[in-house]
Amino acid sequence: MSLRQDAQTIYQAAIRASLPDRAVRDALADWTPPAGRTLLLAVGKAAWRMAQAAQQTLGGRIDGGLVVTKYEHSEGPLNGIEIIEAGHPVPDDNSVRAAQRALALTENLTEQDAVLLLISGGGSALLEQPRIPLDELQSVTEALLASGADISEMNIVRKRLSTVKGGQLAAHCAPAHVEALLLSDVLGDKPDTIASGLSAVDGAPESAALQIAQRYDLPLSPQARDCLARPLPQALPHVRNRVIGGVSVLCRHAAEACAVLGYQPEILTESLCCTARDAGVFLSNIAQHYAGRGEKRAFLAGGETVVRLTGHGKGGRNQELALAAAEGLRGLTGAAVFSVGSDGTDGPTDAAGGYADGTTWDALRAQGISVPQVLQDNDAYHALAACGGLIKTGATGTNVNDLSVLLIEN
Amino acid sequence: MSLRQDAQTIYQAAIRASLPDRAVRDALADWTPPAGRTLLLAVGKAAWRMAQAAQQTLGGRIDGGLVVTKYEHSEGPLNGIEIIEAGHPVPDDNSVRAAQRALALTENLTEQDAVLLLISGGGSALLEQPRIPLDELQSVTEALLASGADISEMNIVRKRLSTVKGGQLAAHCAPAHVEALLLSDVLGDKPDTIASGLSAVDGAPESAALQIAQRYDLPLSPQARDCLARPLPQALPHVRNRVIGGVSVLCRHAAEACAVLGYQPEILTESLCCTARDAGVFLSNIAQHYAGRGEKRAFLAGGETVVRLTGHGKGGRNQELALAAAEGLRGLTGAAVFSVGSDGTDGPTDAAGGYADGTTWDALRAQGISVPQVLQDNDAYHALAACGGLIKTGATGTNVNDLSVLLIEN
Repeated sequence: MSLRQDAQTIYQAAIRASLPDRAVRDALADWTPPAGRTLLLAVGKAAWRMAQAAQQTLGGRIDGGLVVTKYEHSEGPLNGIEIIEAGHPVPDDNSVRAAQRALALTENLTEQDAVLLLISGGGSALLEQPRIPLDELQSVTEALLASGADISEMNIVRKRLSTVKGGQLAAHCAPAHVEALLLSDVLGDKPDTIASGLSAVDGAPESAALQIAQRYDLPLSPQARDCLARPLPQALPHVRNRVIGGVSVLCRHAAEACAVLGYQPEILTESLCCTARDAGVFLSNIAQHYAGRGEKRAFLAGGETVVRLTGHGKGGRNQELALAAAEGLRGLTGAAVFSVGSDGTDGPTDAAGGYADGTTWDALRAQGISVPQVLQDNDAYHALAACGGLIKTGATGTNVNDLSVLLIEN
Repeated sequence: MSLRQDAQTIYQAAIRASLPDRAVRDALADWTPPAGRTLLLAVGKAAWRMAQAAQQTLGGRIDGGLVVTKYEHSEGPLNGIEIIEAGHPVPDDNSVRAAQRALALTENLTEQDAVLLLISGGGSALLEQPRIPLDELQSVTEALLASGADISEMNIVRKRLSTVKGGQLAAHCAPAHVEALLLSDVLGDKPDTIASGLSAVDGAPESAALQIAQRYDLPLSPQARDCLARPLPQALPHVRNRVIGGVSVLCRHAAEACAVLGYQPEILTESLCCTARDAGVFLSNIAQHYAGRGEKRAFLAGGETVVRLTGHGKGGRNQELALAAAEGLRGLTGAAVFSVGSDGTDGPTDAAGGYADGTTWDALRAQGISVPQVLQDNDAYHALAACGGLIKTGATGTNVNDLSVLLIEN
């Protein structure tokens, strides 16, 4: 049981350290708002908690604000701050209303004013004032999701169909100072890719959006096509962007927790993006090499793996990764692989991820459950449930990608 | 160019150190044949070189023998030894003739006699006397290759359809002493899995073969089904099996070559068995984490990845692994991934493997070649050829799995 307990200690420590509250408090400790008005604008799945932490830290210095978050992600009223819940991953009418309120809030500011912009994952859909009809934007978004486009490609297109993304919201705040704190849910932690870059200059070449539209054969009206050719803000000197959390923070704190438990930690990557199944196999192959040497080692990988759909079962990428390690771990004593989504929800399940060790394969086999078959069916949830391998945390309030760890205890 | 040159230095050193000649000479230094006849029987892709080394070491002590190897793998006549070249990976008429000659050679031996059995990878197909018609065996082998079955599963089935595998050849040599030297091409280096265990007791449960046939829905005649239920030899007290080379030796020597070049080497695994594509992505994700830190690092993985067939192009698992790393390496300076088959032939190509670095993706794009599309088509050979990324060694004379390396030079 010690590996299972160590796993829990490690992911709890990593997630706790990645919670928006602490990151915002730490970041605001050294920030003094200018003399004028200070407005708070928080957008994303973690918006409510980031706003609450800012309010607790800055207290009466905040003169008003707006929180835009996903449905059921508000945890109650915040004094003097409007709260709007909206659609994710597909924007809806409330996303448009949120954008209109955000633009109204930041209208007619002066150089003495400041906007504290608190951005987290999901902001891309939650705050949206499109330059084309919303139903057309929705169908473009759906086409992009279905096309296999990666998140950076999706954002390049969506920025140009929007009045707020690609630095446009921050440009609208000028000449007020914009202090942007970003909690990254994208690999690489670049401000222009987090929530489609509400506060950052877009780094893509001017022709990129039209090329992507062509590559994936997107259905576009002439109006939408014109938008894709439109230039975005080229400089935002009144803006300071700070990335205060992300998968690298998650990995670093997990590694520290490993070290406290006596494991020699090694972060392999913070941008894991292969299939969940093969990531699990690869980690189990590393286990085969290191198990039984009498050393406590931990190999960590942060990122966001991909599920290859071959069945219709229930699961998520973290559960699939852990279960896929079970074959390679089979019979090894003192080795385990676990993987968790930092937001606490892995796929459409109530689990955050999964855990497997040298006993998992045979425990399942004894119940007549074949791991290869379960993987083929994408049904990791039920298999892990059958062997005590589900990791449940509840919704954590943060969203900084996934953490996958191989532990070797001897 | 330095990374490309370093790659070459590393794989050449690793392969050179894994050549059968040296391993056989070292192993025979402390072996004295018994008083009777000593017969040499070498089977596998490295059979010719192993036989030559044995002949050079034991000289006139060898009273006759047979070398069974792959087409074009014989390097000339060997005094007093018959040479048969046969089909691989699918057995053919010459495989059957080879088995018949091997059984005839080892007929009617006494306790004073010895059989020096030199086994290397490929022996499974090269030496075969099936218990079912050859064309049925071929279709079963092809179905197994296409099904995604792993090599140990393939061998469990093929042993029971054979008169020589699963310890049956060694059993046939009794009461003569069998001195078996094995060059492993399978992960884990177990004698019962190398060349389908010509000289070793099969470790699989009796029901395993029928279960595998069911799992992969193999086309089987009633006769074949009976064979799968048939017991194999349970003890071989007259046999000594020694594994004299394998992927661990390959990795160790590669790591030593890395260190000589100034890289800090780390062997991640000697049993890599995930898909080639995702292994390449995983290594490129590690590159993203370590590139640009000013350290020279090398991450090594030995093993045998699997190609997931999604197209009809030309390539092999090592080429696919290297090309799959190209997207993640894109734009990184000072990072490269290469992968080679130690036998010098990767898939049905004249290349041993492939090399990719931060320039590969854009070099191909400039020629209108899309890496994702090439991977989808399983056509890595032509893409790597177009950017100088093919690694060619010619047939090396050894066969101890694959070596995949990520080099970080700064």
